[in-house]
Amino acid sequence: MTKANNKDKTENLQTPLQQITYLLRKYRLVEGFVHLQNESDQELAESSVQKQNLAELQSLLDQLHPADIAHILEALPLEDRLLVWSMVKAEYDGDVLLEASDAVRETLITEMGNNELVAATEYLDTNEIADLAPDLPQVVMDDVFQSLPIAERQQLRAAMSYPEDSVGALMDFDVITIREDVRLEVVLRYLRRLDELPDHTDQLFVVDRNEQLKGVLLINKILVSDPDMLVADVMTEEMITLHPDDVAQQAANAFERYDLVSASVIDAHGKVLGRVTVNVVIDFIREKAENEALNLAGLKEEEDLFAPVLKSVKNRWVWLAVNLVTAFIASRVIGVFEDSIEKLVALAALMPIIAGIGGNSGNQTITMIVRALALEQISSSSAWKLIAKEIGVSAVNGFIWGTVVGLFTYIIYGNPALGLVMTLAMILNLLLAALLGVLIPLTLRKLGRDPALGSSVMITAVTDSGGFFIFLSLATIFLL
Amino acid sequence: MTKANNKDKTENLQTPLQQITYLLRKYRLVEGFVHLQNESDQELAESSVQKQNLAELQSLLDQLHPADIAHILEALPLEDRLLVWSMVKAEYDGDVLLEASDAVRETLITEMGNNELVAATEYLDTNEIADLAPDLPQVVMDDVFQSLPIAERQQLRAAMSYPEDSVGALMDFDVITIREDVRLEVVLRYLRRLDELPDHTDQLFVVDRNEQLKGVLLINKILVSDPDMLVADVMTEEMITLHPDDVAQQAANAFERYDLVSASVIDAHGKVLGRVTVNVVIDFIREKAENEALNLAGLKEEEDLFAPVLKSVKNRWVWLAVNLVTAFIASRVIGVFEDSIEKLVALAALMPIIAGIGGNSGNQTITMIVRALALEQISSSSAWKLIAKEIGVSAVNGFIWGTVVGLFTYIIYGNPALGLVMTLAMILNLLLAALLGVLIPLTLRKLGRDPALGSSVMITAVTDSGGFFIFLSLATIFLL
Repeated sequence: MTKANNKDKTENLQTPLQQITYLLRKYRLVEGFVHLQNESDQELAESSVQKQNLAELQSLLDQLHPADIAHILEALPLEDRLLVWSMVKAEYDGDVLLEASDAVRETLITEMGNNELVAATEYLDTNEIADLAPDLPQVVMDDVFQSLPIAERQQLRAAMSYPEDSVGALMDFDVITIREDVRLEVVLRYLRRLDELPDHTDQLFVVDRNEQLKGVLLINKILVSDPDMLVADVMTEEMITLHPDDVAQQAANAFERYDLVSASVIDAHGKVLGRVTVNVVIDFIREKAENEALNLAGLKEEEDLFAPVLKSVKNRWVWLAVNLVTAFIASRVIGVFEDSIEKLVALAALMPIIAGIGGNSGNQTITMIVRALALEQISSSSAWKLIAKEIGVSAVNGFIWGTVVGLFTYIIYGNPALGLVMTLAMILNLLLAALLGVLIPLTLRKLGRDPALGSSVMITAVTDSGGFFIFLSLATIFLL
Repeated sequence: MTKANNKDKTENLQTPLQQITYLLRKYRLVEGFVHLQNESDQELAESSVQKQNLAELQSLLDQLHPADIAHILEALPLEDRLLVWSMVKAEYDGDVLLEASDAVRETLITEMGNNELVAATEYLDTNEIADLAPDLPQVVMDDVFQSLPIAERQQLRAAMSYPEDSVGALMDFDVITIREDVRLEVVLRYLRRLDELPDHTDQLFVVDRNEQLKGVLLINKILVSDPDMLVADVMTEEMITLHPDDVAQQAANAFERYDLVSASVIDAHGKVLGRVTVNVVIDFIREKAENEALNLAGLKEEEDLFAPVLKSVKNRWVWLAVNLVTAFIASRVIGVFEDSIEKLVALAALMPIIAGIGGNSGNQTITMIVRALALEQISSSSAWKLIAKEIGVSAVNGFIWGTVVGLFTYIIYGNPALGLVMTLAMILNLLLAALLGVLIPLTLRKLGRDPALGSSVMITAVTDSGGFFIFLSLATIFLL
């Protein structure tokens, strides 16, 4: 991909990061050298080499889009990040903060004075300020409020009142409304008086005297229609409308299914409150997918790649603690059977196989079910069909892999009975994995909780402890 | 979210699925009853109750958007799915096939005659036909080719030639080009002669005599500018351009960062080939995120929720086989220490704790690194910083959790030396997890492979076998 103007300066996205890293390394090298010579920081900053390095850095930065600057800041270790951040144009500060991940944004805000922060918000819309608000000091927010006109204060208050992950939190207020009883000609003249249309304006909202939404007039429809026509004759009444309290995921589904660029947000009385645009939806989808991947590995939240060690420890300990508890339980299950293991020590070497494959198979089932739940594809009537299918898959897999494992055991240990116990234990643990792989996410959903959160830990706990128990008790009954 | 026209028919997305499920259940009930009475299928189909059920179903379906129909088909078990599919309007067939997941699309195509398939493509653009092509029988594709005008044949051939996951595969050909030396007035008149603009047209492409891209004219800019102005004065020369051979992910990144609705695709000489639009990018992002989640659990590809058991077994066996191999290896590592376990059977109960926590910690590191690699945030100079950081995090975690585990062991078994061995083994296994958690994905990337694929299996294999080895050899050295 090239971000080309006719000069085609940058050949590749990674290049600016590489160039900046290179300049920073040169800068740090000189710095180290100067320090070695015991010269003061003052002299350092004034040395002509350093001045040139910084000037080059500055001119590179000045050409970059705020989103690219945010990306580069995320990729830099803390010290370099703050040096570069101090060189970013003040009018970009707000946009860069918006584009940066939560963790990195925090490091940037910590470095800014209150006045700088207030200044940064001046270039932002109210809905964007609302996004930053949770990370800004209260003093700053008070100042920002004071500086806004009354109408925008109300918008900001409204935007801050919607919970995260609601449509309201994705909404902006850049709405152009028109009346249905005017000619397109008039609409065109009205638009021409604006300096520019808000980004992602693909439709105008047609409202009646009470601000109630009657329909939408597509921009592209204006262009191909006779200017003498009435808005009412060109507008569409069939449209997607969102409510501010809807779950954001529903808006994302609608944008994906119906290929939208923008959609109106209306209140219970049909009054237009704002709109959601596709760029915000893309950010939401990306962030959500990333958070799911992080949560799956037990990372509580986005972690700054270069976060201090102790901060990372804090981000990760909950998951390790939970897993430690389940590991302890599994360990106690084994402890119950110590006598059996003492008599037949091969059990110790074989038991992790049963537990491990059970965990893998259970996680496959969970992944299928969680995905289907997210896509709203499971009804109460199909749940039984799914359990039956997963049990069937596990029965076949258990039979195949149980046989393989049984043969392997027989070959290694020359004990056919031990092989049979392995086969049987494998089949039973896979069936357990299938049953709970369906039931755990369905139950979490029934209880109103997110089925993606924690179901993987739970299934692994069950297949570990369950697998050890099944295998060791079968062995105790049949072999000893 | 409501898809409202002024009648506000449907209150909630799930409702059509529920209604259809309800009608299908009624239909199947009557069917079962009639079969019980040994009446023929003929009579069944002609019974007035059944006719009414089908008519209701039909009228429900006729109101739905193709994307919603595809969603409902995915949620239905095979038999019901095919009944509903047979009732979908012919002009929607192509769109529904496009929207359906690969696995479900396959079940639908199998049920269609070749003529039906050819007919379905008639409502599609060439780039859409190219998306379906891999799933269509050769005979059908030959017929489709024959039926196209020459220009579209070339487009179809071009579209089919780009590899999956390239920008070319996302591209469509609905491009409007204009010259820079005309007035906006003329552009407006030109547009008005079209029935409608292609979906997601937010800009027109300005080309010179050789079809080379000179800039873009934003639709919204046309609306706010004086019609007497020249295109050259209103157009933007700074713009994002893509190349058909770029990786699709790069296009997705560009859309996300620069908030695009469409972007031009040009060849090496700057000639406009087509464009990519945001709706296609959203589908790509969603599909990619889903595939990553599925791959992580070892599901080779999207699996039809109601796939036959044997098909699912086939989709899942590779992963189970790979894990079986690593479990066997871990089992043999334990086997080496059978003498030690026989002497101190507590080792058998404790060893899975060391292996398990190591696996969890390693997967946390891998997730961080894979994410940073995907975002292109790791340079060779920062790799060392990352290893140092992860080792630091593991050292702290190892010390904390190792102490907890050591105390637990001491309390349960009353053996302080055993507790110390647990602590030490935990620390060492977490350090191993950190080191390889960074090195495995970086190495896979260096070798030109996808670091997300398989790195989780590899780290778990290392922390299992490594954990057993570290713990059991420490125990053998210090305790026996």
